[in-house]
Amino acid sequence: MALKDELDIVIPTIRNLDFLEMWRPFFEPYHLIIVQDGDPSKVIKVPAGFDYELYNRNDINRILGPKASCISFKDSACRCFGFMVSKKKYIYTIDDDCFVAKDPSGKQINALEQHIKNLLSPSTPYFFNTLYDPYRDGADFVRGYPFSLREGVPTAISHGLWLNIPDYDAPTQLVKPSERNTRHVDAVLTIPKGTLFPMCGMNLGFNRELIGPAMYFGLMGDGQPIGRYDDMWAGWCSKVICDHLGYGVKTGLPYIWHSKASNPFVNLKKEYKGIFWQEEIIPFFQQVVLPKEATTVESCYLELAVQVRDRLSSIDPYFTSLADAMLTWIDAWGELNGKGKPTLENGFLMLALKTK
Amino acid sequence: MALKDELDIVIPTIRNLDFLEMWRPFFEPYHLIIVQDGDPSKVIKVPAGFDYELYNRNDINRILGPKASCISFKDSACRCFGFMVSKKKYIYTIDDDCFVAKDPSGKQINALEQHIKNLLSPSTPYFFNTLYDPYRDGADFVRGYPFSLREGVPTAISHGLWLNIPDYDAPTQLVKPSERNTRHVDAVLTIPKGTLFPMCGMNLGFNRELIGPAMYFGLMGDGQPIGRYDDMWAGWCSKVICDHLGYGVKTGLPYIWHSKASNPFVNLKKEYKGIFWQEEIIPFFQQVVLPKEATTVESCYLELAVQVRDRLSSIDPYFTSLADAMLTWIDAWGELNGKGKPTLENGFLMLALKTK
Repeated sequence: MALKDELDIVIPTIRNLDFLEMWRPFFEPYHLIIVQDGDPSKVIKVPAGFDYELYNRNDINRILGPKASCISFKDSACRCFGFMVSKKKYIYTIDDDCFVAKDPSGKQINALEQHIKNLLSPSTPYFFNTLYDPYRDGADFVRGYPFSLREGVPTAISHGLWLNIPDYDAPTQLVKPSERNTRHVDAVLTIPKGTLFPMCGMNLGFNRELIGPAMYFGLMGDGQPIGRYDDMWAGWCSKVICDHLGYGVKTGLPYIWHSKASNPFVNLKKEYKGIFWQEEIIPFFQQVVLPKEATTVESCYLELAVQVRDRLSSIDPYFTSLADAMLTWIDAWGELNGKGKPTLENGFLMLALKTK
Repeated sequence: MALKDELDIVIPTIRNLDFLEMWRPFFEPYHLIIVQDGDPSKVIKVPAGFDYELYNRNDINRILGPKASCISFKDSACRCFGFMVSKKKYIYTIDDDCFVAKDPSGKQINALEQHIKNLLSPSTPYFFNTLYDPYRDGADFVRGYPFSLREGVPTAISHGLWLNIPDYDAPTQLVKPSERNTRHVDAVLTIPKGTLFPMCGMNLGFNRELIGPAMYFGLMGDGQPIGRYDDMWAGWCSKVICDHLGYGVKTGLPYIWHSKASNPFVNLKKEYKGIFWQEEIIPFFQQVVLPKEATTVESCYLELAVQVRDRLSSIDPYFTSLADAMLTWIDAWGELNGKGKPTLENGFLMLALKTK
């Protein structure tokens, strides 16, 4: 089984994990990290035979102490705690309402295997290849693709898609309640450098060594003015950092079967601030420039936190809290991952803090 | 039949057009512009029932006079003459070794119909939609896509793909002589702003009103040091101009069936200068900035010609000739399309010429 000892599967949940039965042939060889959301006194049942560790809110508080404030409560954003405690090179994260999809030939799709293929083959962010991923069997670079770019760059993120219930926002859910995604597009492609995308956390793989510290899912849910933007936030931050550091982001295959639409009215309440905030946040991320001196994910992320506080706090005080939480997250990440506090020594960051 | 009176089909050829028989159900309602390459005394047979006009080299020389120097001879780059003499809003151009492909269900693909769909629906160059073209049936913008960008921008170019023989360069043909493209990817997507792509002229639609004057296929073939970069050149130029003017470029569906691979040894001879020149040309196009004052395709193209001469002539004197040919092309375009010579009055261009 590919990467058996190098990949953890992270699952945020509030319920018994019966959905794992369908994934058994694919997931059983791997280690699971389950992050229990909500009431920690509730017992989550995991089907027998799976190798797992489970963290509830009490565990998070115990492990992180005051720094636990950066981990969201009552929101699937809590999954990023699993990224932090993992010691593996690769992460696959999936929602508990996602099942095994079938390809057009009727064969069950091994989503994890495809994510691993995506992550282990290079990306091509500097020039578009019209036959999609040139590293797939039966494909290559087309005429006119610069030879100097054909080695590609390391792939940091593999973003998978969903059959059945598409990942729509509340307004689109309300307008098109019965739309289902039935189109299986047999493609993987690199999202070009300089282009942002809406990263969904439902079916997502990444290289934790390359991009882990940027995979912070923000402050969402309980006590926060916003929800359902956790993965979007991580997507914006990680994409600009991948672009800066020369890593690739792939999207497309694999598909999972997304079984049930969340309630659009509840979603609208969670999303509505995000829907107008993103009109300012996205231009910010499109224009953000990270300093050349920022050569690690951690230093890029700290720089980004400073710029978020400086440039987004005028939208809402929430962004000041979020920027602080970003700093706390990196602090906690360093603590759990044995890197101490490498960050405050960064001259450029100190400069950034001073010139505010 | 969609756009029957607003679209011309342009075909460059050196042989009898028997390939049209297979396209009859799809092309017969449209007007064809056939550009005969090579020996003008040869008679090209067109199957009965098609409505067409045909131009050979003598016609091109007669119509353009000295300006005919900008139209390549003994190279399919001559197809751009057809773009210039058309009076329609849309162009579809196809090679004579391209046949009707079948989709995975076995149904014949109406390539022209799909190009028209692509051209009549907007593009989304400013943010990536992970479910591909949001305007297709059964698709939409996903959660996190900014609402302010959901109207999209006008689509200028529709780039179709090829089953069977992929469009590989000579080195790849030599290394993988028997590779065939069998993957039908059911997707159309917008190539993001700021990203270049290798545009292939084999199966290409565009909006002539929006981008026509940028669809110049350069100096290739007879008497030129390079071939097989005609469509690449048009692709680089038209993409940067689309980006500047706010138009979209789509790629993906439709597929045609590309029947026969050209000779890789002959191709290598044509391509080899392009293979190393492109290592400098592409960075040039990636960095080129067009002035705000350039608000028409013609003025953008003239500005580009000036920059090509200034910044690429050091690679080879060929680029000085090419820059001159670009100016001649716009001049001829204006003449045939009733725009006189709008160009030399452009203050910014004069400035550009003066400051050289």
